[in-house]
Amino acid sequence: MNLMPTYKNILSAAQQIASHAIYTPILESFQLNEILGCRLLIKAECLQLTGAFKFRGAFNRISRLTKQELKSGVVAFSSGNHAQGVALASKIMNTPAVILMPKDAPKLKIENTQAYGAEVVLYDRITENREKIGQKLAVERNATLVPSYDDPYIIAGQGTVGLEIVNQVDNLKASLDAVIAPCGGGGLISGVALALSQDFPNVDIFAAEPEGFDDTIRSLVANKRLSIDKKQHTICDALMLPTPGQITFSINKKLLKGGFAIKDIDTSYAMEVAFRYFKIVLEPGGAIALAAVLSRAFECRDKTVCVICSGGNVDYQTFKKSIGKTKKS
Amino acid sequence: MNLMPTYKNILSAAQQIASHAIYTPILESFQLNEILGCRLLIKAECLQLTGAFKFRGAFNRISRLTKQELKSGVVAFSSGNHAQGVALASKIMNTPAVILMPKDAPKLKIENTQAYGAEVVLYDRITENREKIGQKLAVERNATLVPSYDDPYIIAGQGTVGLEIVNQVDNLKASLDAVIAPCGGGGLISGVALALSQDFPNVDIFAAEPEGFDDTIRSLVANKRLSIDKKQHTICDALMLPTPGQITFSINKKLLKGGFAIKDIDTSYAMEVAFRYFKIVLEPGGAIALAAVLSRAFECRDKTVCVICSGGNVDYQTFKKSIGKTKKS
Repeated sequence: MNLMPTYKNILSAAQQIASHAIYTPILESFQLNEILGCRLLIKAECLQLTGAFKFRGAFNRISRLTKQELKSGVVAFSSGNHAQGVALASKIMNTPAVILMPKDAPKLKIENTQAYGAEVVLYDRITENREKIGQKLAVERNATLVPSYDDPYIIAGQGTVGLEIVNQVDNLKASLDAVIAPCGGGGLISGVALALSQDFPNVDIFAAEPEGFDDTIRSLVANKRLSIDKKQHTICDALMLPTPGQITFSINKKLLKGGFAIKDIDTSYAMEVAFRYFKIVLEPGGAIALAAVLSRAFECRDKTVCVICSGGNVDYQTFKKSIGKTKKS
Repeated sequence: MNLMPTYKNILSAAQQIASHAIYTPILESFQLNEILGCRLLIKAECLQLTGAFKFRGAFNRISRLTKQELKSGVVAFSSGNHAQGVALASKIMNTPAVILMPKDAPKLKIENTQAYGAEVVLYDRITENREKIGQKLAVERNATLVPSYDDPYIIAGQGTVGLEIVNQVDNLKASLDAVIAPCGGGGLISGVALALSQDFPNVDIFAAEPEGFDDTIRSLVANKRLSIDKKQHTICDALMLPTPGQITFSINKKLLKGGFAIKDIDTSYAMEVAFRYFKIVLEPGGAIALAAVLSRAFECRDKTVCVICSGGNVDYQTFKKSIGKTKKS
């Protein structure tokens, strides 16, 4: 495969993952549609195996390794969802996995990654360079590095979310105006944008990023990759990346309409709305695209908009803090 | 339609609801399968419109009313999920709905029913007879009574859950051993049993009921409809019915293998497991079939079992009490 993934690669990824991944539903609430004055479609990727879309890309990558590569194993670095995706894909493909995770990752994500049989190595997100440690581990163990976003197989795998949206929106006979997806390194949104550019070229695609981690939004404006200061904090532990990916940004700068920097308080409220109206559990990073609509960062009135709710791996303590809120202010 | 629903009626219901209801996914967790030593399939009906399977039957019934009947409106009595199903189906079909609900129903269920535009009348579950009040209201308003379970259209509508399970299990190439469904009046489980009796005649079907409200289990043993004392309490507000339905029991006594009376503490723990492993929000009554597996009331080892998680309409206060528990004790 070329470094730059294509629509065909996404079709191939869909075949590759079909018998393993869950074809996640589009959810809808008449009540919320009425309140918002729009048609809101929720692509509930929190229901994916491992509780996040990341399994798609990880399985698409790992299932294509050679027998020899599978024997040597894989290495990955991840804040938690890619970790679980790689761990489960490795378990299914029967290959050893070692995964580098930040010390401050949610406990649930670390525990789950270990429960799938992966070896977890912790590092400090602020002071250490995960790419360097990951590459060192890969060399030491003669293992294949499975990047979390900047890889054509990973992007194509995440792009299958976009293919499903196309089919599901067709089945609903809806006319889609916009798609909003969370954006960390940009693997999900670039894959989805690639899928939609073929089938729904007129749909606007927007990135949702936490305030302070809006590197893709700033980079889109500047038309070049910019980095932000990674010493900040957000409740969206899955989206704390300081720089857009190389491959992902080269796709995103062509295909995205723009993005929204979302306040944590709005993201937290979106978790409550997902609980109340859709009966799904979202982690903060998984709720941020929904927050873009609820906060009116994206003005949805009279439109049909699909938001990708990308993950639900949240500790109960964090979840309890979000649910039961009746208004966002 | 005859009083006794048939497999054909379920096929017809599936067509009737197809463009409105959500085709809910089957969810699975590798981690939980490993812990339990079985293959556990979750039919996530909490993701249905209105947060519970009840929309299926209600829409199948109300969408078949004549123009004249639609003009006069409908009456229903319900602990909350049928109420919401009838309210939304009535909204879609543009017919007025008045719904009788117990005073102690969860606030969320009452609010949602009103939000769909239905008129809610409250009654006392212990001292008043809801059937009588409902029939009186129907006569006064010349409205059609939409029963919550003892009606062939309602049973056929709920039976579409069974048709979907058949298709989904076929797609997974799994060999199903058992299905466990929550049982109040028995509409869901009788419809599902009817669907499965045609396609998977060798699958064992079990009812899950709260301890103290195990009227169907006792009736199955006695081979006749028995009533229990309704002055008891359970957290499963959706399943507090004292007697099996007439039509539903005549189906269930032929097609069910048996049932399990589940303790509230086990149901509460099942809500936590659904939160942690499946990222879905379940109300107590919606989690009871899962509790039958987790508590080993049903011994699942080496089996493939599908549990129907029937609803997710739970107040956040109740939900917060369940999540975060690490063992059921």
